[in-house]
Amino acid sequence: MSKGGLEAGETSKGAASASRGLSILDFLFRVVAGLATLASAIAMGTTNETLPFFTQFIRFRAEYDDLPTFTFFVVANAIITGYLVLSLTLSIFHIIRSGSKVTRIVLAILDMLALGLLTSAASAATAIVYLAHKGNASANWFAICQQFNNFCERTSGSLIGSYVAIVMFVLLILLSAFAISRHH
Amino acid sequence: MSKGGLEAGETSKGAASASRGLSILDFLFRVVAGLATLASAIAMGTTNETLPFFTQFIRFRAEYDDLPTFTFFVVANAIITGYLVLSLTLSIFHIIRSGSKVTRIVLAILDMLALGLLTSAASAATAIVYLAHKGNASANWFAICQQFNNFCERTSGSLIGSYVAIVMFVLLILLSAFAISRHH
Repeated sequence: MSKGGLEAGETSKGAASASRGLSILDFLFRVVAGLATLASAIAMGTTNETLPFFTQFIRFRAEYDDLPTFTFFVVANAIITGYLVLSLTLSIFHIIRSGSKVTRIVLAILDMLALGLLTSAASAATAIVYLAHKGNASANWFAICQQFNNFCERTSGSLIGSYVAIVMFVLLILLSAFAISRHH
Repeated sequence: MSKGGLEAGETSKGAASASRGLSILDFLFRVVAGLATLASAIAMGTTNETLPFFTQFIRFRAEYDDLPTFTFFVVANAIITGYLVLSLTLSIFHIIRSGSKVTRIVLAILDMLALGLLTSAASAATAIVYLAHKGNASANWFAICQQFNNFCERTSGSLIGSYVAIVMFVLLILLSAFAISRHH
C-alpha cells in the first residue's frame, strides 16, 4: 500500500488528468448500469396480468412471483442497483483523488462479484422466459405466453436492462484494469 | 510490453521461484476445472431414461436434448473443457518462463470470458432443474422428476462439475491478478 502511495505521488500531472477522464467515464458507466438494473427490477417486479376470462384449467392471473426464478431476478437486480448507488461515492472519490490504487482494486473485485450475480440472474430468467415462450413438448410444459401475452412481453423486456448492465460491468472492469495498470 | 520485459529481467531469483509455484498451482487448478467440466458435459450429455410403462399423456423416454437449456449446458461445458486443455500449454509456458507478463494478461481475460459463459450455462440449467424438481402450479408446469427420477438425479448431479469449475476459475483469476501484480 505504501508502495502504491509512493508511485501515486510520482504520477505526473498529465497522467493524473487522463486518469481523471477514466474516472469520469467510470462514473457515467455506473449511472447507466444502475438505471438499467433499476429499470429491470421495476419492470419485472410490477409485472402481472389478469385475463378477462378463465376456465377450470387455466389460471386467470399471472404475477412475476409465481416463478421463483423471476423473484431471484428482481432481488439480484435490486441488490446490484443498491451496490451501484453506493459505489458512486467511491467513483466520485476517484475523480477527486485520481492517485488512490487500493480502492480501485477493491472496487474492481466487487464489480466482478456483481457481474457474476447479475449474469446468473439474467441467464436463469432467460431460460424461464424462453420456456414461457416456446414451452416444451417432451416435459409437457405449455407455452404460457399464448395466454399471458402482456405478462410475457414485460418479463422478456425486463431482461434487456440486465444485459445492458452486464455490458456496462464488463466495460467498468476493463476501465479499472487499465486505470490500475497506469498507476504502476 | 518492452517495459514489462525489462522489469521481468530485473526479477530476482527468489521471486522467480515463488512465481513458478504460482504457475504450478495455476496448472493444477486448470486440470481440476477441466476434469470437472468434462465430467459435467459427459454426465449431462449421456443422460436419458426410458420408463418401463407409458400412458397416452406421459412420454416414456427423456433425453437431455429434449430441453434446449441442457443442450446449451453441454455445449458450454465442452467448449470450456477444450479451452482449458488448450490453456494448459500456456500454463506450462508460464512454469518454464515465469517472467512473461503479456500472455498472463491474455489468459486472465480469456479466463474471465470462460467464467461468464460457464456461469450463464450453469445458472440456466439450474433454473430448469429446479423447475423439473418442483414444477410450477401457476404456469401448469408439472414436476417431471416424479416420473423421470433417474433422469433428474443425473441432470442435477451434472451441475456440480460446473460449479466446481466456477470456483476454480475464480481462484485462477485471483492467482493471475496476484502473479501479474508481482511482476511490476
